[in-house]
Amino acid sequence: MALNPQYEEIGKGFVTQYYALFDDSTQRPTLVNLYNAELSFMTFEGQQIQGAAKILEKLQSLTFQNITRVLTAVDSQPMFDGGVLINVLGRLQCDDDPPHAYSQTFVLKPIGASFFCAHDIFRLNIHNTA
Amino acid sequence: MALNPQYEEIGKGFVTQYYALFDDSTQRPTLVNLYNAELSFMTFEGQQIQGAAKILEKLQSLTFQNITRVLTAVDSQPMFDGGVLINVLGRLQCDDDPPHAYSQTFVLKPIGASFFCAHDIFRLNIHNTA
Repeated sequence: MALNPQYEEIGKGFVTQYYALFDDSTQRPTLVNLYNAELSFMTFEGQQIQGAAKILEKLQSLTFQNITRVLTAVDSQPMFDGGVLINVLGRLQCDDDPPHAYSQTFVLKPIGASFFCAHDIFRLNIHNTA
Repeated sequence: MALNPQYEEIGKGFVTQYYALFDDSTQRPTLVNLYNAELSFMTFEGQQIQGAAKILEKLQSLTFQNITRVLTAVDSQPMFDGGVLINVLGRLQCDDDPPHAYSQTFVLKPIGASFFCAHDIFRLNIHNTA
């Protein structure tokens, strides 16, 4: 499969859509639709889980209501299977917690005319706000 | 191709090897051997380049001599083509520059019994050291 020349807008579009849903606590569980039932991996603060059912459990366990998020960089690359690799750097503040830098990496895989999120790695960068 | 059950040690081993070479200015250009002549992508501080020749140019343009590096997280996931996705968070200080948080994402692709680095995204997280 060829490189997707739209990788840059696909990456930015995905990130915008993803965080719009994530940052709205009533919409957050609907993110599960972006993941594959069995194939998708999520590593959340070092905890690794696989498959949409467990990813939904994780999303539902995140109970913060108010998120303030600032993106500092969104870098995307095309992959040779037609997918897109995305790396996001930003800062976020949840409810009354202090603000933290974070990094999130996504790999989108093509499925028909769309994509699913095959890989998702999220880490707060606690050391860097000290 | 199946998931590689050794993804965790492959990820950590790659990162150790990569930074040992990167942080030694005399060895840094040898990193080019980890990239494919045409297929590999590097995004360095937002600048995107493709192929080993241009990646070598970029490596040779990095003239700092002394790097102090601390890794705060190395998260790896297995990929369904037998590859490994790696996300690194850390801090580094080059020569007399102030220390910066950074994020680096690698995708390793299998080639025979080994791997090459197909994707490499590096970003300093300037905002987070303010």
